[in-house]
Amino acid sequence: MTGLAGGTMDRIRAQRKVDMVKVLAFDTFGTVTDWHSGVSAALYRLFPDIDGSELALDWRRTYGPALAEVEAGARPWTLLDDLHREALERLLHDRGVVNATADQINSAVHAWHTIPGWPEAAEGLRRLKRRYTVCALSNGNVALLTEMAKLNDFAWDFIGGADLWRHYKPASEVYLGIADLMRVEPHEVLMVATHASDLEAARSCGLRTAYVERPREWGTQHKDEPVNPLDDYHVTGMDDLATQLGC
Amino acid sequence: MTGLAGGTMDRIRAQRKVDMVKVLAFDTFGTVTDWHSGVSAALYRLFPDIDGSELALDWRRTYGPALAEVEAGARPWTLLDDLHREALERLLHDRGVVNATADQINSAVHAWHTIPGWPEAAEGLRRLKRRYTVCALSNGNVALLTEMAKLNDFAWDFIGGADLWRHYKPASEVYLGIADLMRVEPHEVLMVATHASDLEAARSCGLRTAYVERPREWGTQHKDEPVNPLDDYHVTGMDDLATQLGC
Repeated sequence: MTGLAGGTMDRIRAQRKVDMVKVLAFDTFGTVTDWHSGVSAALYRLFPDIDGSELALDWRRTYGPALAEVEAGARPWTLLDDLHREALERLLHDRGVVNATADQINSAVHAWHTIPGWPEAAEGLRRLKRRYTVCALSNGNVALLTEMAKLNDFAWDFIGGADLWRHYKPASEVYLGIADLMRVEPHEVLMVATHASDLEAARSCGLRTAYVERPREWGTQHKDEPVNPLDDYHVTGMDDLATQLGC
Repeated sequence: MTGLAGGTMDRIRAQRKVDMVKVLAFDTFGTVTDWHSGVSAALYRLFPDIDGSELALDWRRTYGPALAEVEAGARPWTLLDDLHREALERLLHDRGVVNATADQINSAVHAWHTIPGWPEAAEGLRRLKRRYTVCALSNGNVALLTEMAKLNDFAWDFIGGADLWRHYKPASEVYLGIADLMRVEPHEVLMVATHASDLEAARSCGLRTAYVERPREWGTQHKDEPVNPLDDYHVTGMDDLATQLGC
């Protein structure tokens, strides 16, 4: 023993990790924004006769399979807005809503552009931006993410939408793509998300990872959020991430 | 005559133009930043024995031909940073500077990342951002432009670097590319630049145009800046643009 206690070594190791990270890449839906509240509210307003919360949950469940279909090459590149539209039309039909107007559908699809940030997100990003380059890295498209950022005052340094690469996470093109655009090595990027699968894919590309607890992502439904020792950080929000990163 | 005087008609026409524009796309080198001051200062510091201002001017003159060579397909896609490096090495050699270190070259190339904004630029962009989506649309690469924005507090909504499209202006892919990413029609984008050739190419793609006077772009060298009636706006800076656009 050199006289350094275990806690000191942990702090030194943590400091080294922090020192190498230059770019923070954030998942958006669920991680910095509360899609369930935002989309539910729009659906309750647009379709008063059906359960907007339940429809929002079912709509979100179509997301992974739809993106995977595009990534598998089963269909050509399709923007998230268009995937959202198809899924909603199907879900409404299944619920017996057959007379939805184009305006109603457009407004519901657009609700994904205007979902509110989690309360601490905008200010946390602002703190982090002082020391790091903060980027959205999302399966949303650039226009959607730009609108979301303006409404929520997210001060992104750069918006990495899936349409830049025409690939959806967890495809490696997205994680390696942001490192390439920022002219850094993959291990200099910290992927921040509330979804283990996103972080696992990022790690497999050499990125560092931070898990964000968002227990209310699915409304009142329980969400399992165990600490994964493979993540470099496990935080309770953007404010906690800023504090843990010394911002 | 309907009783509307010519001045009133002009105002109505101008208002209609404003109403259709949603996205402002800004050239950066010269238009929002003062490359001559920034690069000259770095060169004087790095190479005290040579005329930094003259070298900066000559360096900038290599820019158009180098980009055109890439666009013509005479060489594969090459980042602006790398084109800058090659040109500088050649220019130094021509001046008899044969012992420049890698650090000196790197620092000089990096000076293009850190050039200062024109005095009114950051605040003007902030005013414009309230009503419009403000994007950089530059032949710089994303990482360069991100660093430039952080240093100058440019609150871009989105950074359109040439590496997103692997094309250099005046290639149509860049002008149409930003409209596509923003999900708007070309005529809903206003290209803002201090270079007539940039605006001419933008117009040929259907974009609207605003010329920004920057009489000191080339230091003390005279720059011709006639009003071109084909431009939708002719302004003296970002503050004037904000005022003319009613922000």
